[in-house]
Amino acid sequence: MRADFDALAAFGATPKGGVSRPSLGEAHLAARAWFLRRSQEAGLETRVDAAGNHSAILRSGRSAAAPTLLLGSHLDSVPDGGRYDGALGVVAALHVLLAVQKAGADLSVALEAIDFTDEEGTLVGLLGSEAVAGTLTAESLRAPRGGREALLAGLELAGLHEERLAEARREPASLAGYLELHIEQGPRLEQEGAQIGVVTGIVGARSFSLVFRGAARHAGTTPMGARRDAGLGAAAFAVAANAVVARDFPGCVATVGDLRLEPGAFNVVPGSARVALELRSPDAVQLDELESALLGEAGLAAEQHALGLEAIPVGSWEPTALDPGVRAAIRRAAAALGLSTLELVSGAGHDAQALAGVTRSGMIFVPSVAGISHDAGEHTRWEDCVHGADALLGAALALALGE
Amino acid sequence: MRADFDALAAFGATPKGGVSRPSLGEAHLAARAWFLRRSQEAGLETRVDAAGNHSAILRSGRSAAAPTLLLGSHLDSVPDGGRYDGALGVVAALHVLLAVQKAGADLSVALEAIDFTDEEGTLVGLLGSEAVAGTLTAESLRAPRGGREALLAGLELAGLHEERLAEARREPASLAGYLELHIEQGPRLEQEGAQIGVVTGIVGARSFSLVFRGAARHAGTTPMGARRDAGLGAAAFAVAANAVVARDFPGCVATVGDLRLEPGAFNVVPGSARVALELRSPDAVQLDELESALLGEAGLAAEQHALGLEAIPVGSWEPTALDPGVRAAIRRAAAALGLSTLELVSGAGHDAQALAGVTRSGMIFVPSVAGISHDAGEHTRWEDCVHGADALLGAALALALGE
Repeated sequence: MRADFDALAAFGATPKGGVSRPSLGEAHLAARAWFLRRSQEAGLETRVDAAGNHSAILRSGRSAAAPTLLLGSHLDSVPDGGRYDGALGVVAALHVLLAVQKAGADLSVALEAIDFTDEEGTLVGLLGSEAVAGTLTAESLRAPRGGREALLAGLELAGLHEERLAEARREPASLAGYLELHIEQGPRLEQEGAQIGVVTGIVGARSFSLVFRGAARHAGTTPMGARRDAGLGAAAFAVAANAVVARDFPGCVATVGDLRLEPGAFNVVPGSARVALELRSPDAVQLDELESALLGEAGLAAEQHALGLEAIPVGSWEPTALDPGVRAAIRRAAAALGLSTLELVSGAGHDAQALAGVTRSGMIFVPSVAGISHDAGEHTRWEDCVHGADALLGAALALALGE
Repeated sequence: MRADFDALAAFGATPKGGVSRPSLGEAHLAARAWFLRRSQEAGLETRVDAAGNHSAILRSGRSAAAPTLLLGSHLDSVPDGGRYDGALGVVAALHVLLAVQKAGADLSVALEAIDFTDEEGTLVGLLGSEAVAGTLTAESLRAPRGGREALLAGLELAGLHEERLAEARREPASLAGYLELHIEQGPRLEQEGAQIGVVTGIVGARSFSLVFRGAARHAGTTPMGARRDAGLGAAAFAVAANAVVARDFPGCVATVGDLRLEPGAFNVVPGSARVALELRSPDAVQLDELESALLGEAGLAAEQHALGLEAIPVGSWEPTALDPGVRAAIRRAAAALGLSTLELVSGAGHDAQALAGVTRSGMIFVPSVAGISHDAGEHTRWEDCVHGADALLGAALALALGE
């Protein structure tokens, strides 16, 4: 498994030691091609569906119509990302199939290691897994996060057809469940000294562009009291939002990830400020409350600085609970391996949230050193990677055997 | 004077009703050429010096060696600026010469209406007036505000030579003083209901790039308490800086005019924030105190958010006092015209601050409607423009006659 992990890390390798494999770019497609070739050479059946998802399949010896237990993750990365995010889960899934194949075990389900298209959202986000779940909408393809042009160019390069993506949908009855191994991308497992994270659910998120509008004025001639400083209003909002979340919403996060001032010069009081706000909560009701509290703070900041305010929703996903039966299977598999576990919520989005709508789904996390992710410095100790793959194998067998 | 003002406003006219005449661009050079032609047609002597300053001259009938009373301003504008900033002072200066010429008055000084090169600083800032004062440095030409390439392109287009700019220097003994009519660019005259502003001095200013450095992290997986959010530190600084200036430094201003977050995405905690900070005070000691208070606040904000901080000075000019004798002459001229006056400090920089180092200098302000400037919405009522020109004529005659 180590050799395969290292081989994958060569695709889109960056000077800093990470990888850059944006969805359906050259490096991503090369990594996917390697995955198919490696699977074929190991004697596995392979498949590429209408959404470009790449799979290696180990059929059940008992029935050609046996349902499929999907083991997945993704080979795309954010630009200048790390080696572990996604790739670890795909390599581990492949090696679960190889272990079962080698053992000659006769399961009542087919095992499928699947590399989903465009998890990271440099194009759309969860494109492949939503296509499989049947929830990919025409709307998300019309105005994708990465821009319409990039999407069309990627589809073309990958030989995919927009109007056929939805054909990747699977009948829920054809699925026996979904399991994903992934790095945590946060610091909690490391802080708590736990080896295996049993993911209870995936947070919901909302994002807004908040536009504060004041009056651009000469910074030398406009007294402090005569200003309608949009940048100051935005800064006051950022400070207040942080304080409200830290005080009233434990377990939630809110982030001002970007802030653009216009005209943006040393000697001009900013006339407008555009704030990129994102908030996340594991609970749907709390997510509503958090949104309402933060938009309230934005309104207050605008009022106090005599500014106009527009709040433009730019993204939203609901919290997802993961299957209690699958969580129990992961806990038992870890216990059998002598690995310590911690139940935790995923603060990041994953393909599992798409699959959870159509089949019993679960996720296994392994620790991220210092919680670093989406960066070349992303690292998981190799023994933790192996622990994760072992737990994935144990949980998959438990689900396959109906334990 | 109205016809000439309107003719000038056609050069670089913008759809919104302002002008865009960046230094030594096509529109600016066309406006300057018009000024020379108009002066020549009126029978005035004209001159373009080695720094590109354009002048109309009315010689003294008494002596060819008589010293020169300069009446100046500038015909360049900020990009997408207004019609009044600079142009009003040049047109009014020209009409002072025309009035004296028409009256056949025999003065002991030469009168020179001068249009200084690059006042606004789209290239260097005060280039022409500093050349005349002998304070233009090679350093400011090596790393100009607008970039070295833009400066060289402008000089080329205007037929000027970098190595000869300094030849525009005038012997202080050859000057009888400097007077400038300008719009206030702020709201004070309008607020106080005064018709003429007698400028007591020009504020000093300092500017800094403050770079806060934290850690870029996944916004979903990094708990609020585990963040080193550079954007939050910068926002806290902006709020604190505003409060300190408003509370402890009356008559001063401080502005966060720009704020750049890296990497600048919805789902990433900002790893670094670059703040454009500018501060201004009419008093040199107070300017030092203000700088020290604000850099102290930046240090506190960095400490509270576990951030690194670098403060890079990017500009500085000292406060300039204007000549008490010239101020008295302006006050008397306004009183003789029945115009109300207000003494005030200029929050903006002007060519007068360069001239004040070598000759007695003064400035007359007229009200800016709503304090708007550097914008197409910049406006001064025409009767206020005429009052300003009348006061300029009165003050110039008083200085010329040694009253």
